[in-house]
Amino acid sequence: MALLFLSSAERAAIWAPLFEAAGEEMILGEAAVTDPAAVTHILCWQPPQDLLRYPNLKAVISTGAGVDHMPALPEGVSLVRTLAPGIEEMVRDWVVMATLMLHRDMPAYIAQQRAAAWTVRPVALARGTRVGIMGLGRIGQLAAKSLTGLGFDVAGWSRSARPVAGIEVFGAAALEAFLGRSDILICLLPLTAETRGLMDARFFAMLPHGARLVQAGRGAQLDMEALRHALDTGQLASAMLDVTEPEPLPADHWAWSDPRLVITPHVAAQTDAVEGARHALNVLRASREGAELPGLVDVSRGY
Amino acid sequence: MALLFLSSAERAAIWAPLFEAAGEEMILGEAAVTDPAAVTHILCWQPPQDLLRYPNLKAVISTGAGVDHMPALPEGVSLVRTLAPGIEEMVRDWVVMATLMLHRDMPAYIAQQRAAAWTVRPVALARGTRVGIMGLGRIGQLAAKSLTGLGFDVAGWSRSARPVAGIEVFGAAALEAFLGRSDILICLLPLTAETRGLMDARFFAMLPHGARLVQAGRGAQLDMEALRHALDTGQLASAMLDVTEPEPLPADHWAWSDPRLVITPHVAAQTDAVEGARHALNVLRASREGAELPGLVDVSRGY
Repeated sequence: MALLFLSSAERAAIWAPLFEAAGEEMILGEAAVTDPAAVTHILCWQPPQDLLRYPNLKAVISTGAGVDHMPALPEGVSLVRTLAPGIEEMVRDWVVMATLMLHRDMPAYIAQQRAAAWTVRPVALARGTRVGIMGLGRIGQLAAKSLTGLGFDVAGWSRSARPVAGIEVFGAAALEAFLGRSDILICLLPLTAETRGLMDARFFAMLPHGARLVQAGRGAQLDMEALRHALDTGQLASAMLDVTEPEPLPADHWAWSDPRLVITPHVAAQTDAVEGARHALNVLRASREGAELPGLVDVSRGY
Repeated sequence: MALLFLSSAERAAIWAPLFEAAGEEMILGEAAVTDPAAVTHILCWQPPQDLLRYPNLKAVISTGAGVDHMPALPEGVSLVRTLAPGIEEMVRDWVVMATLMLHRDMPAYIAQQRAAAWTVRPVALARGTRVGIMGLGRIGQLAAKSLTGLGFDVAGWSRSARPVAGIEVFGAAALEAFLGRSDILICLLPLTAETRGLMDARFFAMLPHGARLVQAGRGAQLDMEALRHALDTGQLASAMLDVTEPEPLPADHWAWSDPRLVITPHVAAQTDAVEGARHALNVLRASREGAELPGLVDVSRGY
């Protein structure tokens, strides 16, 4: 049983002593593999092309929380996402920041600063401002808790419509009612066949006029031309994007210079190396014990 | 007993029906005063020059939470600040936003967006990041609670060193120890003789190298040239300013175009008109009953 490590050298330097202390084997890079049959787990962002080289491969562990970039794996090989409390808190922090930035008109103030203009705009109370969170997994629940604590009137939307303490939850069929009460809409959805292209002109038309968008899902969920049109008509007042399609956003893309947008380069979270190593060790232990792998992805659902 | 109202017509339109419903008299503007002896309270940002015109004046109510702009009042006239839960929550929201923006490198990302550059920078966890709050009144305590909830390691500094649940509090004499553990420093202090010019070169030198500053106190507390020097040497990494000296910041001021600064035009809070009217009615009621006026300022302390 060994983990083939396909990530950066900086990260490997942190992982190696933790694996040694745990008595687990870690192989640094495919070139270092002397016995392919010993490789039972691979840690990577993109798996190597020839996975069939490893006859005893049990699982591929994605270095991040997202797995939509992963190709189909050979039968019998599990797909695992990295679970690390740090990832969830980081995304929560970015989402709380982005929500407050849109709520408090930061796109306009950033543009005003560039023009050296001291112009006061009306200040709104969080209390009474309706926030809608699409995607109520761990991160969505953490965000709901923080935003409720600031006084925002928070609701959520999820496929399962499973109840979440302290907020109203809308199910898949109630999208229109949910969007109609979202002054600030937060997208935390995974990329699946159903969410690809979800945010289009028809979708934006269901929001209150002048709504704001926090996009921390996946770039391919958002139709950028529909976004531009919604901003031009005032249907959307502003948006904050951490993900785009494509990534990186090309230097000549119109979105960079739009004063109604704030863009960050997919940095809502990064996996902390120590937490990532701990998670991988937990996966190895579960494999050995025949227990369910932590972070196991249900490939049929896509997340 | 009557309140002389010296504020905007928009605000008066909201106050008038509330005063009528409460059976209290409100006079709109000095020109409308027929009997100066009837005026017992004045609501204003800047009081009229000749306050001695009103022989029965009991109190001047500032339209905002701050009172450092107020001149000395005649003997026997109390100074009252507007207390409104909305003000405190608004400042708390701005402070939480600003803290997250500095923690998550938004000044750099704003500059990168302007250059159409998709460049990932390391993401830090809130957990383990030390935040120091100067000023532990109602707003400081609300900010401490929110930031602690996000995982920041929060401490506070106040003259009284009165304990605050959940955080370590440093007293006036422990400024150096407090600053030495403040990766992100938040200023919420009132402007007094002691806090004027407080943040100078010697002060910044006590912070950890690369610290960040959230300034939501008063402009005159911050030496702008010392700020510029601290940014140039890297002693400060970035800052977010809602107050400046002077205000408005002149269009040709260097701070507008500094990419390490984010500036908002004194908008951390605005008094909600309804809440302001309710507070003024409470002051009138307390005056009539001989009770302590809500928001009464201790002029000897300056806040």
